[in-house]
Amino acid sequence: MSKLRVHNLAVSLDGFGTGEGQSLEAPFGHAGGRLMEWFFPTRTFVSMSGHEGEAIGAGTIGIDDDFASRWGDGIGAEIMGRNKFGPQRGPWEDHEWEGWWGPEPPFHSPVVVLTHHERPDLALGETTFFFRSLPPAEALAFASELAGGQDVRLGGGPTVVREFLEADLVDHLHIVVVPILLGRGERIWDGLEALEERFDVDVTASPSGVVHYVLERKAR
Amino acid sequence: MSKLRVHNLAVSLDGFGTGEGQSLEAPFGHAGGRLMEWFFPTRTFVSMSGHEGEAIGAGTIGIDDDFASRWGDGIGAEIMGRNKFGPQRGPWEDHEWEGWWGPEPPFHSPVVVLTHHERPDLALGETTFFFRSLPPAEALAFASELAGGQDVRLGGGPTVVREFLEADLVDHLHIVVVPILLGRGERIWDGLEALEERFDVDVTASPSGVVHYVLERKAR
Repeated sequence: MSKLRVHNLAVSLDGFGTGEGQSLEAPFGHAGGRLMEWFFPTRTFVSMSGHEGEAIGAGTIGIDDDFASRWGDGIGAEIMGRNKFGPQRGPWEDHEWEGWWGPEPPFHSPVVVLTHHERPDLALGETTFFFRSLPPAEALAFASELAGGQDVRLGGGPTVVREFLEADLVDHLHIVVVPILLGRGERIWDGLEALEERFDVDVTASPSGVVHYVLERKAR
Repeated sequence: MSKLRVHNLAVSLDGFGTGEGQSLEAPFGHAGGRLMEWFFPTRTFVSMSGHEGEAIGAGTIGIDDDFASRWGDGIGAEIMGRNKFGPQRGPWEDHEWEGWWGPEPPFHSPVVVLTHHERPDLALGETTFFFRSLPPAEALAFASELAGGQDVRLGGGPTVVREFLEADLVDHLHIVVVPILLGRGERIWDGLEALEERFDVDVTASPSGVVHYVLERKAR
């Protein structure tokens, strides 16, 4: 049975998964890069970014990379919200904007982009984006089919993750709590009272100051 | 120079320092005892409760007790909100209610209770409660005088701690993040954007599943 997994979702200590004011220049709004500073030095990110061997070296190993590296194993497809694809709102007016990632996005799998606005499928390198207006359970069914028996990653942003948690569709939730207070933005935890009762919770602090929470669904 | 310190303030993963619906039977509202389950087994709490040697033993040592035990060292007075003293609202109609703690409260020092409603000072064992209507800076000045050169502990609840943080009066903040989602209650972090920039932050995960954050003010 394929699982729905969330990996590397960074949240501020006050519970915001992204800041306010997302734009082309600021994918995380006023949070800037602060939610992902633990991630950028890791071997996983360095390898994903294609910059190994330059001044940056191969990237760090250790607790943060250990968690970060799990994002791809056994994943056959991703689901993401449209705000993770890009900062446009409303109808897709600019089809030349093809996401944050350039000609070879790091997903290397089908990606279902949840949007109420139609847009043709988009193949970029080994990644194909399917733009669909689907409620969570149907989006998961569609992505599971695309994944061909492998797991599906729920890629964010925070609003989408919260919707799938509310619908009780998430099997594995890796949250990284960053010791900063954003004060405003998109909250991840609202409306999820007592969520932890459905999960086994594992907590690991990293020397970088972030804390990795892994919530694994208890057997039904 | 005496410092203002917060110790053992437990907060849910979604940022609530107490649940909704505080009452005589439920000091933490719908949170019940869940925010303090990490604390109850510790040697510090067991010793404070006067139950050593009964079935419960002497209490645990380890990470949680190591943090918990720091609450009293060098403290000469406490400041608390009236909701920490008791669940009454409005004028003090019931003077026979003398707080949650019985004839020998665990503070053993002067305690300033912040309230807009007059009530005579109350001496119980080694603790004297002073009921005062004072803004944060004046409350701190009064408590510092009572502390006679020692530090002042800010005892909570969450609303009072947030007010003193907003007024930039807190020197040492020990927060214990408990991996539960309360969903409602009193938020600790609202209105404190970028607070961490004024503090050095130390993060320690405990095998009990809670995470201890110690924020120590940077030199001014």
